[in-house]
Parts: sequence; structure tokens; C-alpha cells
Amino acid sequence: MQDVDQEQLVAEVRALAQRARDASRVLASASTAQKDAVLLRVAALLDGPAADEILAANAKDIAAAEAAGLAPALVDRLRLDAKRLAGVADGVRAIVDLPDPVGDVVHDRTLSNGLRVQRVRAPLGVIGIVYESRPNVTIDAAALCLKSGNAVILRGGKEAFESNAALAKLVGEALRAEGLPEAAVSTLGTTDRRATLALIQASGLVDVVIPRGGEGLIRFVTENAKVPVIQHFKGVCHVYVADDADLDMAMAIVRNAKVQRPSACNALETLLVDAAVAERFLPAMADALSEVALRGCERTCALVPRATPATEEDWDTEHLALVLNVRVVEGLDAALTHIARHGSLHTEAIVTRDKAKGQRFVREVDASLVLVNASTRFNDGYQLGLGAEMGISTSKLHAYGPMGLEELCTLRWVAHGEGQIRK
Amino acid sequence: MQDVDQEQLVAEVRALAQRARDASRVLASASTAQKDAVLLRVAALLDGPAADEILAANAKDIAAAEAAGLAPALVDRLRLDAKRLAGVADGVRAIVDLPDPVGDVVHDRTLSNGLRVQRVRAPLGVIGIVYESRPNVTIDAAALCLKSGNAVILRGGKEAFESNAALAKLVGEALRAEGLPEAAVSTLGTTDRRATLALIQASGLVDVVIPRGGEGLIRFVTENAKVPVIQHFKGVCHVYVADDADLDMAMAIVRNAKVQRPSACNALETLLVDAAVAERFLPAMADALSEVALRGCERTCALVPRATPATEEDWDTEHLALVLNVRVVEGLDAALTHIARHGSLHTEAIVTRDKAKGQRFVREVDASLVLVNASTRFNDGYQLGLGAEMGISTSKLHAYGPMGLEELCTLRWVAHGEGQIRK
Repeated sequence: MQDVDQEQLVAEVRALAQRARDASRVLASASTAQKDAVLLRVAALLDGPAADEILAANAKDIAAAEAAGLAPALVDRLRLDAKRLAGVADGVRAIVDLPDPVGDVVHDRTLSNGLRVQRVRAPLGVIGIVYESRPNVTIDAAALCLKSGNAVILRGGKEAFESNAALAKLVGEALRAEGLPEAAVSTLGTTDRRATLALIQASGLVDVVIPRGGEGLIRFVTENAKVPVIQHFKGVCHVYVADDADLDMAMAIVRNAKVQRPSACNALETLLVDAAVAERFLPAMADALSEVALRGCERTCALVPRATPATEEDWDTEHLALVLNVRVVEGLDAALTHIARHGSLHTEAIVTRDKAKGQRFVREVDASLVLVNASTRFNDGYQLGLGAEMGISTSKLHAYGPMGLEELCTLRWVAHGEGQIRK
Repeated sequence: MQDVDQEQLVAEVRALAQRARDASRVLASASTAQKDAVLLRVAALLDGPAADEILAANAKDIAAAEAAGLAPALVDRLRLDAKRLAGVADGVRAIVDLPDPVGDVVHDRTLSNGLRVQRVRAPLGVIGIVYESRPNVTIDAAALCLKSGNAVILRGGKEAFESNAALAKLVGEALRAEGLPEAAVSTLGTTDRRATLALIQASGLVDVVIPRGGEGLIRFVTENAKVPVIQHFKGVCHVYVADDADLDMAMAIVRNAKVQRPSACNALETLLVDAAVAERFLPAMADALSEVALRGCERTCALVPRATPATEEDWDTEHLALVLNVRVVEGLDAALTHIARHGSLHTEAIVTRDKAKGQRFVREVDASLVLVNASTRFNDGYQLGLGAEMGISTSKLHAYGPMGLEELCTLRWVAHGEGQIRK
């Protein structure tokens, strides 16, 4: 689709979306067995006959990325090898093992007029995924959409263009082999921003767009979309250590939340410490987390010589690195005020022995997951028992928190009668 | 807010939204008793001491509407009188009787690591409602948002400006009297379109916008919003009379769906009749629905002399009047194809004696409510047992079908631990 004019580009994207829409009707009534057969075939191809072709496509992406001077860490995220492919295949097999959400009856009631009314889970229809770099998302997203009966249009990053095309081709083969329309999983076929724009503005053809990636990408999609968007914004997550906290527990939670995987969106960014325990907790914390750079408020800096002063901007920053903001606060109210101002609706935790304090924190903090005495790192579909996830929504509409198979569905109403009419 | 420049207008709307946001935090943790007390006070004011003031404000709107030459039917929709106010008050009392959705635990599970994980219903936050004419929506919407713990910003039509202002003032009094922030319910204070634009673009302050009204209004909001929108588009509803239908039942359903309240979005617009029964059904239907103008396909016109030819546009038109499109179709597949092409995701019904046919219709038709052997008029929050509704969503995201109190909430995750960290 490169080098075409605007109008033609939009027409091509809409035609692609129309094919996805037609395919979504078939997929919505496909049986669980049929969908699982496709997924098992995808898994078998991934660590079997298709592996060489995918690795060859990936090698092209890697060469281009290195030629373009991409940072080694980003090149590494792009890279596929036999082991990573096997991991992706195992992820697909795990999705096969999850229950099919389509057709679940979540409400079943017979009204006084005899009308039997049900709410039944059904696919959303056509899902657009706009994402960056890591090619494994191509397979994860396709597998989750297929299992939940949705068609998907994938728009990956330009760095992974060849890898994504090869992976999508593989899924197409598996669909065809099982008698399902190939258009159920498609890629945009270009990274031209105008095509992305056409995709996220294809009202009536695309039911929802899910952006996954950096803040810039998500903002671009949110600002320009004319179809509904489920946002996955940044996680500026807090842990508040209350005046009555078990400080050993607090230390273990802070260490886990900050250090285990600092690049994750559910990693800790700002530690709020109650003034009553700051003197006991902060110097010990600074020693225990010696590999973490500390950006502190004035009181923190007085207690921890190695801390540097935090700027106003730091409080709103998702560092995604071994950097921790630290602020001493006067009581729960001050902690709540800080979180209301700087939180990102993602994950917030309190460490306290006081049940009432925990309850108030849970009630008054707005976030997709609020924890009492546990690490922020639990905000994850696998950890919370969903089995797999499409990302973590920070939109309150439709899905708030990890999006599993159920969150890729809607609930529609079905009514069975014997001729009922309205009085 | 009239006669101010663009920048100032946007700043004022954002300041209003910020006050609503602050109020929403208070409202989210208000008790059921406190919210119900506000609602009971609203009801008491409506058919008591505040009635005169509201009727006086309404009289100004009526006079202006008549002076502007508004159609009598529209003037009538605007008009409030003591009886209508009493009806609105009763509606508010009915909302008091509904269960408070906030705090409902819909999922409660202890993971193998001992972490107790719950999904808990919580308010969305700040809801913007953009609506037209009928002033009773002001109270209905405010009451539903209050009960579900949400702050609301109301932007009504300019024809009802004075009535809406008086009604919102009354709600403000009730909030103040019960110690809740008045900013929990506010009106935009202007019908300047630039202010509406600022409202629907107030990302980070407004959580969702719900447009209610004609297609033009909904399109304006959908195309321009930068906050999530729950659409309430038109209802082009179908009844398909299958080859094996009980034709007496079909007649009763068609009559009820078309005639009982043709201006409703769940009224029938297009009748699809199987070719096998067209000859028996259509002439009798034309006699029985003598007050309804018929726009038919070629075969319908041959069977019913009084029918006029339907245009392509008719099949996509929500007539909202005593006009019915009629098409003879060859079997269920042709009916499904017609609905896939012309349906509006609103309400679709089949009349059949064959269970398998009904099941296939339910599975393959995409609509917020699909009925077997019942009238389309049941797609309504009261009729389906929700108790009250904010409208009928034709978005599949978040809410699909009637939106009751639960649909004005999100589900957030809460986890209680004893120091769990992620391995």
C-alpha cells in the first residue's frame, strides 16, 4: 500500500476492514472446537515447519534495525529465536486451555409476562490493535481475538514489519486449513500513518481499537480515533507505607514492586511514606535498594543523603527504570491527595495493619487495581487468574484493569417468548 | 457564559469539569442512605414547593418555542405541568427503591498464594449527558447518576434551557441540604456549541459522554469527542416472519411493534416476510394495520395494492412514524443478509415455531436485543427488569442495550494480602 494517494489508501483500509467485518460474522458463530483447532495449528507451525521462514523474516527486521542504529535493548526486544518462538507457541496452547467465553449466559430470568430474558456473552466484532515493536504481540493478540470470536486487524510497528507479516501469514494458513476465513486475522500491510488513521476512523466497520505501546502512540490513537478506544495508558503506581505498617513487609513489597521488573507498567514509581515511620523506614530502604536511584522530597533528602531532589515532573513520570520517587506524607489523607493528583488509574497499594485504614484506601483510591499489603506487580492477567491478557486498561469504560477473553466480548440481550406484546 | 471568547469558554468548561471531578470523589464514597435522601428530597421538591418556579421557567421556554414557530408536537414535548412533574417525581422515587450498585462484589476468589482478589462495582466518575428537548431527562439522568455515585454534567437543548436550569438548581438544593457537593450535578450553563465541544473533549476530567437525541446530535458527539462515548444510535428494527410462523402471533407482534408507539427507537421499521407465507400474511396485515403507510418491495406491492414502492433509502430509515417498510424474503438466510446490511444493532425479532430456526437467528443476528416470538418494544430498561434506564446503547463497548444503574458503573479490582510479592 506504499506510495498511493490518500483517497486510495483510505479506500483500501476500508475494504480490508469490510473483509474483516464479513469474517467476524463467520467467526462469531464458529464452534470452540473449530477455533481451538486453528490455535493448535498456529502453535504447531510456530515451533515446527514455519519457524525458519519467521526467523528469516525476523533477521531482515534485525538487520534493518541495526543499520538504523536502534538501541541494543530495542533490537533485543525485536529479536526472535527458536526458544522465543517456542514460548509464543506455548502461550497459544495456554489460550486453547482457557474456557471459550462466547455464549456464556450471565443472567437468566423469566419476567412476570413469561418472557425469558438472558444476557449472553458475544464477540465485540472487529478489533483493531495498534502496537509497537515486540513481534510476539502479533500472535498473542491474534490468538486472544480468535478464541473470543473476534476478527482482528493488526497494525504493528515498522521495526517488526517483516516478522509481523510472516506471523500473520502463518495464522492465515491455519485459518484456511480449518475452513475459517483468512480475513479474520489481517495486518494493515503498511506502517503509513495515514493508513493507521483510516483504521482508527473506520466507524461502522471496526468496533474497538486497542493501542498498546508508549504514551505517544496511545495519545495519537486516543486523539484521532472515531471508533471506541480502550486505553492502556502509563502506570504511575504508588505504595503508601502507613504509620502502623509492618516495616519488614513494606520493605519486601517496595523491593518487589520496584526492582523485580522495572520496565513493567505495574512497577512502583512513587513511594509514599508516612511521616511517623519515615525516620525508621527510609534510611533502611535506601540501603536495601542500593541499586535504585532515589528522587526525594525535602524530608526524604534530609533522611537519605544519596537521594536527589524530585522535580514536580518526577511525580507524574513513569520511569520504567531503577529510579524511585519518594515522598514523606502526613497521614492517609495526604497520601490520598497525592495519589488523586498524580495517580494514573493503574495500580495503587497500601501497607497497613489497620483494617479500617485499608478499607478507606480501597474505597477512596481510583485505580484499576487497589491492593492492601501486596505488591503492585500483581496487576496482570496471569497473576489475577484471567489466564492471559490483552493488556491492562486504564479506561473505566468496558474494561478496567487486565483484559482477558471475557473483556474482549460484549453482553447482548436475548429474549424468548410465546407471542408476548407490550401492554 | 455567552459572548466570551473561545479560550475563556474552554477554560470555564474545564473548571466546571474539574469541580465535577472533585465532587465525584465525594459522591463515590457517599452512603446509599445519603444518596437516597437527596433523591427523596428532589422528589418532594418537584411535586411540592419547587413546582411553581419550575413551571414558570418552563412557561418561558414554551413562549420562546412558540414565538420561534416550533412544531406543536415539539412544543408539547417541552411542556411541563403539575401532572408531568408528579410523574417525574415518581420516577425519582422508583430509583430510590432500586438497589445501589456501588460496592457490589461480582467476583471473589482467593488465589493459591493466598491473595484475595475481588471485582467490585464502582462509579465511572464524571458523566457528561448531551441531550435534546424533553426537560424530564434532566431529572432522570441526574437521579440515575447520583444513585450510581457519579457526578454528572448536563447539556440540554436550547429549547428547554430555562426549565433545565430550574431543575438543576432544585437538585443542587437537595444535594446541599444533605451535605453533598452541589457540583455533583451541574449544567453547562450555555448551549454554545463550542462549550459542548470543550465538554466532550475534556479528557482526564470527564469519563464518558452519553449523547441522547437525534442522529445529527449523536454523530456530532461521536465525531468530535475525545472522551469515550456510549452511543445511542437509531433503531432500524426488523421482524422476520418465518415460513412456519404462527401468523396470528405474527400479526399481533407486528401490530404492537409498529403501532403502539411509533416514535420509540424500539418500534418496528421493516417487516421481512418469508415468501412461503407472504400471500397469506401480507394482504391480511395490510388490512389489519390500515392506519400504517406501507413501503414495499416489488412482490409486496404486487400483493398489497395500497403499498408504494420502497426506495433503497427506506431500508436504512428510522421512520419514527406510522410508516412500515415491507420486504418478501426467500428464507432465513435472505432475512439474515437483509438485517446484516440494514440493521442498526438495536432490536431484531423472529416469529417462528421452529426452535432451531430461532436459535440460528439469535446466534447470527447482531443486535443489543434479539427476540424470538415477542415484540421489539421490549427493548427497554423497565421492560427488561433494570428498573430504570439512561437510554439504549448501540455501542458494543461497555453497555449494549438498555443502560441501568449497573451500566453506569465500572468494575475495579481489589486485592487483600498479607505481604504477598510476585515470584
